[in-house]
Amino acid sequence: MNLTSSFFFIFTLIIFYTAYKFSTLQSKQTNLVFYVHDHFTGDHSTASTVAGKTGPASSILNFGTVAIVDDPVTEGPNIDSALIGRAQGMYINSQLDGKGLYMVFSVIFTTGEFKGSSLEIQGSDIFTMKEREFGVVSGTGYFRT
Amino acid sequence: MNLTSSFFFIFTLIIFYTAYKFSTLQSKQTNLVFYVHDHFTGDHSTASTVAGKTGPASSILNFGTVAIVDDPVTEGPNIDSALIGRAQGMYINSQLDGKGLYMVFSVIFTTGEFKGSSLEIQGSDIFTMKEREFGVVSGTGYFRT
Amino acid sequence: MNLTSSFFFIFTLIIFYTAYKFSTLQSKQTNLVFYVHDHFTGDHSTASTVAGKTGPASSILNFGTVAIVDDPVTEGPNIDSALIGRAQGMYINSQLDGKGLYMVFSVIFTTGEFKGSSLEIQGSDIFTMKEREFGVVSGTGYFRT
Repeated sequence: MNLTSSFFFIFTLIIFYTAYKFSTLQSKQTNLVFYVHDHFTGDHSTASTVAGKTGPASSILNFGTVAIVDDPVTEGPNIDSALIGRAQGMYINSQLDGKGLYMVFSVIFTTGEFKGSSLEIQGSDIFTMKEREFGVVSGTGYFRT
Repeated sequence: MNLTSSFFFIFTLIIFYTAYKFSTLQSKQTNLVFYVHDHFTGDHSTASTVAGKTGPASSILNFGTVAIVDDPVTEGPNIDSALIGRAQGMYINSQLDGKGLYMVFSVIFTTGEFKGSSLEIQGSDIFTMKEREFGVVSGTGYFRT
Repeated sequence: MNLTSSFFFIFTLIIFYTAYKFSTLQSKQTNLVFYVHDHFTGDHSTASTVAGKTGPASSILNFGTVAIVDDPVTEGPNIDSALIGRAQGMYINSQLDGKGLYMVFSVIFTTGEFKGSSLEIQGSDIFTMKEREFGVVSGTGYFRT
């Protein structure tokens, strides 16, 4: 049995984070808008399922599946707009009915105003909620507190 | 070989978080008491092992095993008391002797005073310690800072 | 097929965190220097790969691989210097070219000044950067905010 050969990508998910508010300890506030492009299939694929109830080939739509991501972060909603960084970390399907992801990742800014800085983001993405809110749990560089 | 068929639940763990203190940046303090019911077996099972040294069937009692959870959160210690939310995320056995878990998860409040809010929680649960303390790393909604 | 028998350790990685700054909400600042010894092979091995594109045997040098760690934390850079705690959690290879890790872990102090306290740490470790910075997202005990 070759586990590698049974691995495949399963769906395309595009997430846009908008109007990020990041309050520092000094009550300084920075409004950030950036876009994370998360593709599980196709030429732009930047996410891989690596664990789940049925191993690495588990579907990200099923409870228990773990995916690792290295998603492009852009200035605008179009994937062809300026690339300003990467979102690196992990997505987990952690809702029993499969309709929610739990995410832990870094947004690493590689160009532009925030180059060299990063944000640590953590939170749930419940598919049935129209708007989702994530916790920004820490920052480095420009966002250091 | 069917990885699914070799998957099984291994033990029942019940964790009660009590008297959570959450200090916001404005020094506001909220004392929260809630109960997370975490069952690896039986009718109430809400946790699945998905990775480990021996794949998805690894025991949560062994170093390296990863479990995904979607646990009910209730107002009282009894599982039949009012359901106020879910605890969604990941438990990892990250102690070489198997006697400790590292946890990263969201508590998502679905009803009651904190409906629509969530807490991001991170920390170690060493079995040999009588009391365990977790870091509340971020909050949204009511708990937003 | 026995997944266990195909599991092996793949490389030796030694990481030193120096000059940790931890600003509390009260603007108190503690400068911490401690050393995390992370060995994937040999007698001191304290890390295991548990998931990845090709299952638990995936190389930590490949995108998607997940490793669980229980690393000794010492006062000095030498592994024989005083043991002050453990670093327990998870490392993920989350860079498409394999040259970066995303880490989420607790530093649990077991002896010395900070005994009983812990720090929650999160962030990316990009191999090509000479210095790496992690977010300290929360603390308990001495580091409680």
